[in-house]
Amino acid sequence: MTLTLDQLNAMSRDDFVTALGSIFEHAPWVADGAAARRPFATVADMHRTMLDAVEAASAETQMRFLRGHPDLAGKAARDGALTADSTAEQAGAGLDRLSEPQYARFHQLNTAYTQRFGIPFIVCVRRHTRSSILRQFERRLTNDAAAERAAALREIGLITRLRLDGTVDGPGKPNVNGRISTHVLDTHMGRPAEGVRIDFFELQDDGPETRLGSTITNADGRTDKPLVGDQPLRIGVYELRFHIGAHFTRRGVPAADTPFLDIVPLRFGVAEAEGHYHVPLLATPWSYSTYRGS
Amino acid sequence: MTLTLDQLNAMSRDDFVTALGSIFEHAPWVADGAAARRPFATVADMHRTMLDAVEAASAETQMRFLRGHPDLAGKAARDGALTADSTAEQAGAGLDRLSEPQYARFHQLNTAYTQRFGIPFIVCVRRHTRSSILRQFERRLTNDAAAERAAALREIGLITRLRLDGTVDGPGKPNVNGRISTHVLDTHMGRPAEGVRIDFFELQDDGPETRLGSTITNADGRTDKPLVGDQPLRIGVYELRFHIGAHFTRRGVPAADTPFLDIVPLRFGVAEAEGHYHVPLLATPWSYSTYRGS
Amino acid sequence: MTLTLDQLNAMSRDDFVTALGSIFEHAPWVADGAAARRPFATVADMHRTMLDAVEAASAETQMRFLRGHPDLAGKAARDGALTADSTAEQAGAGLDRLSEPQYARFHQLNTAYTQRFGIPFIVCVRRHTRSSILRQFERRLTNDAAAERAAALREIGLITRLRLDGTVDGPGKPNVNGRISTHVLDTHMGRPAEGVRIDFFELQDDGPETRLGSTITNADGRTDKPLVGDQPLRIGVYELRFHIGAHFTRRGVPAADTPFLDIVPLRFGVAEAEGHYHVPLLATPWSYSTYRGS
Amino acid sequence: MTLTLDQLNAMSRDDFVTALGSIFEHAPWVADGAAARRPFATVADMHRTMLDAVEAASAETQMRFLRGHPDLAGKAARDGALTADSTAEQAGAGLDRLSEPQYARFHQLNTAYTQRFGIPFIVCVRRHTRSSILRQFERRLTNDAAAERAAALREIGLITRLRLDGTVDGPGKPNVNGRISTHVLDTHMGRPAEGVRIDFFELQDDGPETRLGSTITNADGRTDKPLVGDQPLRIGVYELRFHIGAHFTRRGVPAADTPFLDIVPLRFGVAEAEGHYHVPLLATPWSYSTYRGS
Repeated sequence: MTLTLDQLNAMSRDDFVTALGSIFEHAPWVADGAAARRPFATVADMHRTMLDAVEAASAETQMRFLRGHPDLAGKAARDGALTADSTAEQAGAGLDRLSEPQYARFHQLNTAYTQRFGIPFIVCVRRHTRSSILRQFERRLTNDAAAERAAALREIGLITRLRLDGTVDGPGKPNVNGRISTHVLDTHMGRPAEGVRIDFFELQDDGPETRLGSTITNADGRTDKPLVGDQPLRIGVYELRFHIGAHFTRRGVPAADTPFLDIVPLRFGVAEAEGHYHVPLLATPWSYSTYRGS
Repeated sequence: MTLTLDQLNAMSRDDFVTALGSIFEHAPWVADGAAARRPFATVADMHRTMLDAVEAASAETQMRFLRGHPDLAGKAARDGALTADSTAEQAGAGLDRLSEPQYARFHQLNTAYTQRFGIPFIVCVRRHTRSSILRQFERRLTNDAAAERAAALREIGLITRLRLDGTVDGPGKPNVNGRISTHVLDTHMGRPAEGVRIDFFELQDDGPETRLGSTITNADGRTDKPLVGDQPLRIGVYELRFHIGAHFTRRGVPAADTPFLDIVPLRFGVAEAEGHYHVPLLATPWSYSTYRGS
Repeated sequence: MTLTLDQLNAMSRDDFVTALGSIFEHAPWVADGAAARRPFATVADMHRTMLDAVEAASAETQMRFLRGHPDLAGKAARDGALTADSTAEQAGAGLDRLSEPQYARFHQLNTAYTQRFGIPFIVCVRRHTRSSILRQFERRLTNDAAAERAAALREIGLITRLRLDGTVDGPGKPNVNGRISTHVLDTHMGRPAEGVRIDFFELQDDGPETRLGSTITNADGRTDKPLVGDQPLRIGVYELRFHIGAHFTRRGVPAADTPFLDIVPLRFGVAEAEGHYHVPLLATPWSYSTYRGS
Repeated sequence: MTLTLDQLNAMSRDDFVTALGSIFEHAPWVADGAAARRPFATVADMHRTMLDAVEAASAETQMRFLRGHPDLAGKAARDGALTADSTAEQAGAGLDRLSEPQYARFHQLNTAYTQRFGIPFIVCVRRHTRSSILRQFERRLTNDAAAERAAALREIGLITRLRLDGTVDGPGKPNVNGRISTHVLDTHMGRPAEGVRIDFFELQDDGPETRLGSTITNADGRTDKPLVGDQPLRIGVYELRFHIGAHFTRRGVPAADTPFLDIVPLRFGVAEAEGHYHVPLLATPWSYSTYRGS
């Protein structure tokens, strides 16, 4: 259920803490502190005030707060002991469906990280694929303590911005969503390619790809909905596979049993969770091109 | 050891049959018949004469000849009971390394084919990948007997043309070889992309890809040797993977942790075993194109 | 001043003929006949009814009607003796600004055409460039009389459809407009190219090009308005010239005094007056591509 | 008539000076000084020795030498008073065929330059188009005297390197030639485009283009000879015009009276007189691309 900023500005302090107390993991004191600073003109102002409260807290309070976060793919997750938000966030990145070796790798990284920094590894998993989480994990293990505490707080900013986005409506909501879209142009015939099947995959560094879905191009050579939209993009590597050989066969273009182009894969990386990645395909039976468009 | 056409024209009939008796599987009578038609002006003439002898033979002789061929991935192959040529040919297409389900599929197809046509399935395996052999197998099972006998004889023409090519030197040798080549142009900098790693794979309809090799582009953006050359191409589907992200990083182009383009796959089909497939990549960090070139 | 279909359906017969009598050149009888068939549900129905009246007229009436049209770039035009519609239409295609040799060519074609067919050459000039009119003229001179009378009536359908489009508002207006648009993508940087100057020309078969205008791309690499819109496209050949060298210089890309790419011309033909021609440019300092997009 | 380096090393001092005395304009003393330094192992060594002699000469001698050069498109050229080499060089850049306004512009620049620097403007015209000469002229007029003397000596190095190249054969000849080539690929059919007419133009900043020639692509989509080869490229701007519409019509591709692509212009700049500019066209009836290839 979504609340409006007006409602939040108007409600009692207790109701405010009830409504937003779980935005910061196990830290209702953040909402409590913010309640006194109302009214907020924008959602972004409210979020900024909450983050300022965390940054202004004593080192000890901050550490207790950071320690209150769960491990990724850790024991708490396996035992069903996470908060509802954390459960959903970890599942979204596939961390609830790891193979034993993958689980072991997370376990090893969690242990190493906690030994080094005294806190669990915190990352905004809704902005990452599993492979990207592992890359972050390994890179951040090489940070020093100060840099790493700053990194953890930045990620908490991203996590809570997303949690607020799903909880509060009102002016000044920051953009948290990205978009992946495509467009298929048949440059053999000089018009949009209609009816082309596109399979969409997330690739993994260490295992088989994940099929995210399939779609068919419409009369304008586009898909009726973006491939991903209305949510942050997960940083990672993707592949679109266009069934272009079947398209040209339907259009009556003669082709060999084994056509030169049949299924065309376009592989691309997403680095900006809030970015727009437009990845078109321009194809003939003998050539194709792609580019990051707009 | 290669013989010249002059030597073959000059030698005794017995020596000629010894030299070429195994070109047609278990059928030295083909060479024997051709010996009397010497001298041959070209290798192609000699081959044509041998094929004419097969075509002129009685239906009974032809059937006995066709039946003399081994099953693909059959019991004889497993037991080491093939001729040396057949052993090498079947191994080249990977038919000696089948999984149990793949072996079972061949067994089932062999049985169905033999029941229907009374002869083993004959195909010039040196011109095919395993996937392509299976596609041929299934397609030809739908032929009628006459069409299928013609198909088998055509394949024998291709098999023996290749065996002759490896045995005889002389004028008029038909071209039996194809070529796959590539070229990487860095259209960000306007020059050939040097030092780009390229991995080269054969894809399979029903299983994991086979890595055929890796290479690095030279100063002209090409590979020192073609990816495939001096042999027939195997009809099938291939994928080149260009490590273009690493190239741009080496050239100092700024990139995100997860660059838009890192490994670029180009997937293409080969339908002409004797064709030249030039498959270049033109790339920037944000776009690429490919085409069948020349 | 635009009238609504409702108004036209409701007004007196005389007012109707006054309002629409000049749609068909010197032939108020067409409007008069249509007045009796009111009310019309759509503008297209009204137009169809008027055209049916012309087609149903006697051969003699038709000929008189056709003969009532003016020559293109003829004596009447020079003397200011055209109807207001014809004057504007001929000026729009530049027929009022011909050089002496061009005028002579039209005169010669008009004479040949009238001698052959007994009527003036009729073409919907608002859908053509001067070069395209001349091509039509020469092609249609080779028609026989029946084919040419049909061609003339088809053109009258196009002329009057456009005149109605400017006179009447209401449901069922046929689409008479086309669009030319562009988009500049900088595939060196992976984003839209902003601030690129584009000059836009109409090319002529027999003389210097005509500059139609210049524009600058916006932040999305597009132009704020289409290059041509809200009117029929003139069939003919066009050239866009993109000042892409200056763009890369502004972006800090090093370039030679004489860069490889400076002004990039894209030349394309328009065959469909009501079509959408989207002609994007994808460019790096060393490469570019274009295509008919959507 | 070409002499070998061996012959030049072996001949008498007088013969040497006779043979090479005109390489440096009106300065046989340069050859005379070099004669004493024989034998030369390479042509480049001989050239270097001659240039060193000029650089080692007194300021007064250098100025006399520089003043011995003719104006570009100046009175001496009009009166036929140039050396044979200068006459040919200036004609090659079209300086003998100037319009009156163009001649006036050169006259004005010559006057300004001589007043400022006390020497004629010296540039290796064989490496430039007329437009490029004028650009150099205007840019160098802004130099100070020392920079300009250095520029003049550099150009003399380029001029005499080319004169030697046409006079002497032997080891160590520097590369003085560039190349412009093209390749037309029909990506609609997936093969080289044969029989495509290509017109080749030099563009001018201040006047009509110069047609350099026309050619037709061969079966490999290339031209039998490079568009320019075996000579330095003239720095400047060029345009290739490919008659691609006619190609697709010949291949039976249906097209409108006014096809989307008919004559495709590729405009590119040449900045390196000794460079290789490979400018291919990849085209369908609805799209094309080009790039600087290799």
